[in-house]
Amino acid sequence: ILADLANVDNSRERASKLLQWLISPVPSRTFFSETWEKKPILIQRKNPDYYKGLFSTAEFDRILREEDVQYGVNLDVTSYTNGRRETHNPPGRALPYNVWGFYKSGCSLRLLNPQAFSSTVWNILSILQENFGSMAGANIYLTPPGTQGFAPHYDDIEAFVVQLEGKKHWRVYNPRVEDEVLPVFSSPNFNEADIGKPILEVVLEAGDLLYFPRGFIHQGDCLPDAHSLHITISSYQKNSWGDLLQRMLPAALEIAVEEDTEFRRGLPLDYLTYMGVQNSDKDDPRRQQFFSQIETLMKKLTTYCPVDAAVDQKARDFLHDCLPPMLTPVELASSVKGARTRWEGGQVTDESLDINTQTRVRLLRAGCARLCSDGEAVHLYYTTANSRVYHQEELQSFEVKAEFTDAVEFLIHSYPKFVTVGSFPCDSTEDFVSEIVLAELLFEKGIIHTSEPL
Amino acid sequence: ILADLANVDNSRERASKLLQWLISPVPSRTFFSETWEKKPILIQRKNPDYYKGLFSTAEFDRILREEDVQYGVNLDVTSYTNGRRETHNPPGRALPYNVWGFYKSGCSLRLLNPQAFSSTVWNILSILQENFGSMAGANIYLTPPGTQGFAPHYDDIEAFVVQLEGKKHWRVYNPRVEDEVLPVFSSPNFNEADIGKPILEVVLEAGDLLYFPRGFIHQGDCLPDAHSLHITISSYQKNSWGDLLQRMLPAALEIAVEEDTEFRRGLPLDYLTYMGVQNSDKDDPRRQQFFSQIETLMKKLTTYCPVDAAVDQKARDFLHDCLPPMLTPVELASSVKGARTRWEGGQVTDESLDINTQTRVRLLRAGCARLCSDGEAVHLYYTTANSRVYHQEELQSFEVKAEFTDAVEFLIHSYPKFVTVGSFPCDSTEDFVSEIVLAELLFEKGIIHTSEPL
Repeated sequence: ILADLANVDNSRERASKLLQWLISPVPSRTFFSETWEKKPILIQRKNPDYYKGLFSTAEFDRILREEDVQYGVNLDVTSYTNGRRETHNPPGRALPYNVWGFYKSGCSLRLLNPQAFSSTVWNILSILQENFGSMAGANIYLTPPGTQGFAPHYDDIEAFVVQLEGKKHWRVYNPRVEDEVLPVFSSPNFNEADIGKPILEVVLEAGDLLYFPRGFIHQGDCLPDAHSLHITISSYQKNSWGDLLQRMLPAALEIAVEEDTEFRRGLPLDYLTYMGVQNSDKDDPRRQQFFSQIETLMKKLTTYCPVDAAVDQKARDFLHDCLPPMLTPVELASSVKGARTRWEGGQVTDESLDINTQTRVRLLRAGCARLCSDGEAVHLYYTTANSRVYHQEELQSFEVKAEFTDAVEFLIHSYPKFVTVGSFPCDSTEDFVSEIVLAELLFEKGIIHTSEPL
Repeated sequence: ILADLANVDNSRERASKLLQWLISPVPSRTFFSETWEKKPILIQRKNPDYYKGLFSTAEFDRILREEDVQYGVNLDVTSYTNGRRETHNPPGRALPYNVWGFYKSGCSLRLLNPQAFSSTVWNILSILQENFGSMAGANIYLTPPGTQGFAPHYDDIEAFVVQLEGKKHWRVYNPRVEDEVLPVFSSPNFNEADIGKPILEVVLEAGDLLYFPRGFIHQGDCLPDAHSLHITISSYQKNSWGDLLQRMLPAALEIAVEEDTEFRRGLPLDYLTYMGVQNSDKDDPRRQQFFSQIETLMKKLTTYCPVDAAVDQKARDFLHDCLPPMLTPVELASSVKGARTRWEGGQVTDESLDINTQTRVRLLRAGCARLCSDGEAVHLYYTTANSRVYHQEELQSFEVKAEFTDAVEFLIHSYPKFVTVGSFPCDSTEDFVSEIVLAELLFEKGIIHTSEPL
């Protein structure tokens, strides 16, 4: 699949094809209208090789041997026996001898942030994130036969459980009350007595997929005859309307206070004598007036909501959360990362980029850069300098001068089409200096690539 | 006036009588409907003794001699010459020799927080604050003949300029633009060129009053033949509808997210591709849908606004800002501060309070205590332990147990009537233990006093 996807020219299309493959044969459209955020869905394939190559226990072993895996940071050792959930992380580096000892004694292994160690997982998540407009994360779970690693609980993310090896017995339960539907926080560990009867009980086999929305309680345990390896792909943490409003309301009020005297007018002189909890049982007409003034102001506040600016705040957070793109060979050859400049025979060769007005360029990925205004200046934020470890790097951006904003916007909106540097809408001089300066800057930051290797 | 006010039994009435005296002959009602927060008003009395006893330059001198007045903290030395505003505070204690030297050389003196040094100012402000439901503050300004101490500017408070001695030439200017009407912040110093023509120009003489709302630019200078001493009484800083909303909105959203799934639902999968500043020029029907969803949620948010709880937050801040009450002789004799218990002839005498079911009590002042709920527990906040220096003490409160809340509320709402301890609505045992325990607690904290000295 990933080899096929590398041939898909448009990163948005690539993302939606990958998601389609993940949930096939259910059509994406049906999935998002009927299942997403609504209910669990089980896809059984009778095809143990369907997700082959994504990740394996052999790869897990390689990572333990070759990479700096730290207990508590990259790896958790857990058990759940007789209703008791325990973590057994020793301090320090997780070495194979020790880790496999835990496993043999019946502990589950949870590999956190596997995209930092596995290029395939990195690739998959970095493609998928563009589909969700929200970070795509993952954990990998390896569970010995006849054991369970975790207590029943619910999470604050949308979960795709992808069974890679062996099998696992899953039970999924409805949210217990309305307040736990699409929750904002993950739950504590539950007792069996707390959670009622499962609405779904199944043995997931290699090649199968189980999806459930945040708030659905779940627990998985291994049958006596088989181990289980699965990866849980997650998304939509803190990506609700409430999260957007949280960004927007303080700004909305600030604008309202600035622009509208009604918001700056003093509270009624005597409001403390009829408002407040100690007066809430009073049947005072001034209370009604007070409430109706609040209502009037709230209505007005709606008109001051800086919706696009608040979306940009969310977008900036998302761009910071993003994995950097993992380049296809074609992308590599045509971007700064694959530029031919090299040390050869005692000489630096091919050092010039030679971008000219005829060079055709586009964004490296649809979502790899974004123009946001902070009220005064316009900045271009980009993901190409991010790290594979969550937030290891600061979010990168630079100020886009007024004469370049139209050109950058033009580039963003032209994707997936390549456009010539000469066609950038800058105030052109005869020799297109501005256009070439801008293209060189964007190319050097890895934000754009060219239609043909330079 | 203050001697008369001491005979007014109801602290709210006392407060409104004091304000009425301040702005007399304009009736309070007319003042608040036509002038307050709207426009300047000038009251000329031809009675230099009208405000006599409030404060004097002799008192200023006494304070410098007897109190620990610190430059920069309690006293500013300023000048405004040739359009240039300067502060001349040396470090350390402001001693008379030094201060009067500055004055003789043409500097203005501004005494900050004068209520900490003058009991009369303390008394006046502590009474007035109850009228405003917002802190009443003051500064005292002493200006030598023929000088000006401050550049033209506007403030973020409602200002009552009370001329105590001499005279001062005032010019008041309209807010320059709509955004500066009832402003949230004070202005920088202006140049004459910035401010246009005054709408009011007058020589204020002892006994006169000038009021202007926040946002009105003003400057005052002394005529060559007379010095000026005035006190500016201020109120309504950060006491607008916007300030209340600022407290309320985060809580409203938290409640909405907790109670309403609509707020927890995920943002549309692709919203980043059509929302945000870089897409704001797009004519996309999904943008309209997005805006209309925001509108729907904002409308719903209104219904989740915890108005009374937000008022309680403001009330708590106000109670913390409040000056402690300055007791009248009658109040002193009937409150814990005047309790007879004393050291006499090697013995502690009169040590018992003897509160019984027949004892008649009420709050010391209408606004001296307030019952607020923080969602889980109910607390009684009170001002009687505050200090005369702004926020020198923490806001005092204690938790009111469930069995006492009705009784405390009953007490608060009974003011100005005295009620017997036996009439407190507690679940009474035969010997009224609870009622007496509560009354003793409130008496000891200085929150209630008795109808007759104990």
